[in-house]
Amino acid sequence: MSKGLPKRSEDYSLWYNELVKKADLAENSAVRGCMVIKPYGYSIWEKMQQQLDQMFKDTGHSNAYFPLFIPKSYLSKEASHVEGFAKECAVVTHYRLKNSEDGKSVIVDPEAKLEEELIVRPTSETVIWSTYKNWIQSYRDLPLKVNQWANVVRWEMRTRLFLRTAEFLWQEGHTAHATREEAVEETVQMMDVYAQFAEEFMGVPVVKGVKTENERFAGAEETYCIEAMMQDGKALQAGTSHFLGQNFAKAFDVKFATKEGGLDLVWGTSWGVSTRLMGALIMAHSDDNGLVLPPKLAPIQVVIVPIFRSEEELQAIEEKAHEIMDKLKPLGVSVKFDHRDTHKPGWKFAEYELKGVPLRIALGPRDLANNTVEVARRDTLTKEMINLNEVEIGQYVTEMLDDIQNSIYQKALKFREENTTEVNSWEEFQRVIKEKGGFVSAHWDGTSETEEKIKELTKATIRCIPLGRVEESGSCVLTGNPSKGRVFFAKAY
Amino acid sequence: MSKGLPKRSEDYSLWYNELVKKADLAENSAVRGCMVIKPYGYSIWEKMQQQLDQMFKDTGHSNAYFPLFIPKSYLSKEASHVEGFAKECAVVTHYRLKNSEDGKSVIVDPEAKLEEELIVRPTSETVIWSTYKNWIQSYRDLPLKVNQWANVVRWEMRTRLFLRTAEFLWQEGHTAHATREEAVEETVQMMDVYAQFAEEFMGVPVVKGVKTENERFAGAEETYCIEAMMQDGKALQAGTSHFLGQNFAKAFDVKFATKEGGLDLVWGTSWGVSTRLMGALIMAHSDDNGLVLPPKLAPIQVVIVPIFRSEEELQAIEEKAHEIMDKLKPLGVSVKFDHRDTHKPGWKFAEYELKGVPLRIALGPRDLANNTVEVARRDTLTKEMINLNEVEIGQYVTEMLDDIQNSIYQKALKFREENTTEVNSWEEFQRVIKEKGGFVSAHWDGTSETEEKIKELTKATIRCIPLGRVEESGSCVLTGNPSKGRVFFAKAY
Repeated sequence: MSKGLPKRSEDYSLWYNELVKKADLAENSAVRGCMVIKPYGYSIWEKMQQQLDQMFKDTGHSNAYFPLFIPKSYLSKEASHVEGFAKECAVVTHYRLKNSEDGKSVIVDPEAKLEEELIVRPTSETVIWSTYKNWIQSYRDLPLKVNQWANVVRWEMRTRLFLRTAEFLWQEGHTAHATREEAVEETVQMMDVYAQFAEEFMGVPVVKGVKTENERFAGAEETYCIEAMMQDGKALQAGTSHFLGQNFAKAFDVKFATKEGGLDLVWGTSWGVSTRLMGALIMAHSDDNGLVLPPKLAPIQVVIVPIFRSEEELQAIEEKAHEIMDKLKPLGVSVKFDHRDTHKPGWKFAEYELKGVPLRIALGPRDLANNTVEVARRDTLTKEMINLNEVEIGQYVTEMLDDIQNSIYQKALKFREENTTEVNSWEEFQRVIKEKGGFVSAHWDGTSETEEKIKELTKATIRCIPLGRVEESGSCVLTGNPSKGRVFFAKAY
Repeated sequence: MSKGLPKRSEDYSLWYNELVKKADLAENSAVRGCMVIKPYGYSIWEKMQQQLDQMFKDTGHSNAYFPLFIPKSYLSKEASHVEGFAKECAVVTHYRLKNSEDGKSVIVDPEAKLEEELIVRPTSETVIWSTYKNWIQSYRDLPLKVNQWANVVRWEMRTRLFLRTAEFLWQEGHTAHATREEAVEETVQMMDVYAQFAEEFMGVPVVKGVKTENERFAGAEETYCIEAMMQDGKALQAGTSHFLGQNFAKAFDVKFATKEGGLDLVWGTSWGVSTRLMGALIMAHSDDNGLVLPPKLAPIQVVIVPIFRSEEELQAIEEKAHEIMDKLKPLGVSVKFDHRDTHKPGWKFAEYELKGVPLRIALGPRDLANNTVEVARRDTLTKEMINLNEVEIGQYVTEMLDDIQNSIYQKALKFREENTTEVNSWEEFQRVIKEKGGFVSAHWDGTSETEEKIKELTKATIRCIPLGRVEESGSCVLTGNPSKGRVFFAKAY
């Protein structure tokens, strides 16, 4: 019993949009391109945040908060940075409203014009490095490892819930180091943290790599990334970690006294993941019945649905349900008992399927008599009758949740492997991109021209130069020019 | 040994500003009126957030996220609301930058003008009620109890770190109910939650009350508040909870099908506390040596400082320190061992005093020999030599932390009681406000005119009409007109 979702096979894009809305994850707001994250969607984001925040703290980072606004002149200080963001900046120009002269409307007060326009942060490197200038004097002040949870705004013309919105929520780490090596090490470490989070918590396998110059962050020397594959074979960039070199230190004159008595520019990194991860989570696992959530990020891991025809039956079931909950809660399992009498069991089954609750326990009068429960797994849509005389429910549930967590990861990994194709000719490249999709591993001559030409012809972009790739000489799939190794191409979100 | 703070008695205002900066809590940014919350300050705010968030969840609220921007026409829909916020609105008018014609600078692209200006939210009632219109159809959708953690912007002309900043962080709860009684109950409940948080966690006693019409939230029917007293005798509004009546439901046409088959306007509340609480926390307890933090909100509750002259001495001390930490950590005590050899013990003592760490344990070679430790309390600046053969350190520390938590609350309560004066004549009123400060409990005739006149003459405002006040007839302290009971006046932040 599905809640009227379109099928993935018929219209993947519509399926996604409908799922996001029907599962109460998010919706479009009255403000163009800005979303409302609904309570259920936000509770998943909160679980992501908690886990990531812990991982950042475990790797020695502290949180702080920097201003929402960036003076226009600051944004302009790093040339390629402003170049990269200029076309999508929301600009504050005034600071007051007033009544119109006829008193009929409220207008922007022309006399309250700012001397310098303020940009709503699209990312915070500039405002943070202008602050770091005062925080960093000596090698003793380094490394400086700060993270910020914040909202940012990029004025996108075509938006999609979670995947591309004008305002989104994210975290942005900004670190400063005494040496190039240490900064590179930090950049790689944070890419690894993101990969670990994606794989162990989201259950989404990722490819780690570096971006080509074309796809690099505006102001970075190198952009590391993790790339995931969605069920339609398209790639989704799930997180990036940038080695900034000394670019922002130069732009904001951030120098430190070295141990040896010299004066050096500071090395920087920045790294971020956003509510886009919600999009990745949804698209990686869900099916035509609704969301499939990894237990580690599911706000409700187990739902107990009573099957009853009378108040007495409900009461007896309620007792048993509490008995089960008392065993699950101390194990850290989040469990909900839905005893509402305003909705039928069938409606509830469909509802929790739609919302991706990993395990559903149904409890009826016959179960009470037999001391059984019916357990349904969301990911496989399979059911099992459990005899509570034989099975310890706490152990059963925790093992089942672990199994689901592992199983959806393995499924996604298998899908990615089946949809990663090594190609060696331009004809094959075009055919695979067009007919099969997925990741295409191919030789590339290393030039931006070729990269752009391929994008123009096929809409496929280079997702990354995978880390640890085999150094093999070959010929570029388009030009035939020499190549040092394969890169991953795909159509992408 | 203080870190060169001004004395409170000499310049309270300068003392506050310097303390905020020197204790690494916050600083002004390059953007007028916007602050940078530094890692140490933010770690205190995080502890506040965690506790409040738990209290909101325990009272049945869920978090969600609504857009940063509000269309100008939305803000204008509730007349008194826009009236209240119009003068401090940051307005986004454009969405793109471009290079100037001479290529020398980056300018706002005049062609990228928004059709309708967007206001950076000063508060979110309008954008949220426009959303609630779609979420609420029937009594089954009520109550709707949502909270949002967010940044908001109010273009203040005179700003002070934490107390009044153009951008600040806060939470805003927005609930919708089927009946007036339920909405009022919610409003009062959230005021109580704030009061409990202030008293039990911040150690700050508060007066609960309602605001006069003059001081009411723009768009509310009634504003409940908690008012705290700072060490200079000034009042600080620490949290507000608004009964919105049906005002926003009317403005956004939010109606629900009643159980009885009718169609009614929804009743609303909103409530918020902000980073202003950081200002209250700092000003309520701290002294000329620096911050005094309540243990329940201190990021570091205990610091262990080793006293050593050689690497061997440090090693022996380190062993003992870890032994102590192993006893404290399982009890949930957050403890730091500062073994840096770049700073002397005296410097560290002053540093942790400045940062308000509740307990400091000093450990030297003689302590190892005698199995003792020296424990210093931040709030009283007293020291005690503890013999570890006689005292169980875990129990000692947790009891001491409880005692500090309680003791700073009692001290603040005593201060407030000593600085609350009942006055019965205008002469006395003026004298007390001028010479003594604090809360002045006086009769007031209930008119806005009198309230404004008193403010004009003395700078004192009505902080609140205290809940549960004695209903006694009296004469207004200024006009002599009849009054139904006393209200609290004070100069305020």
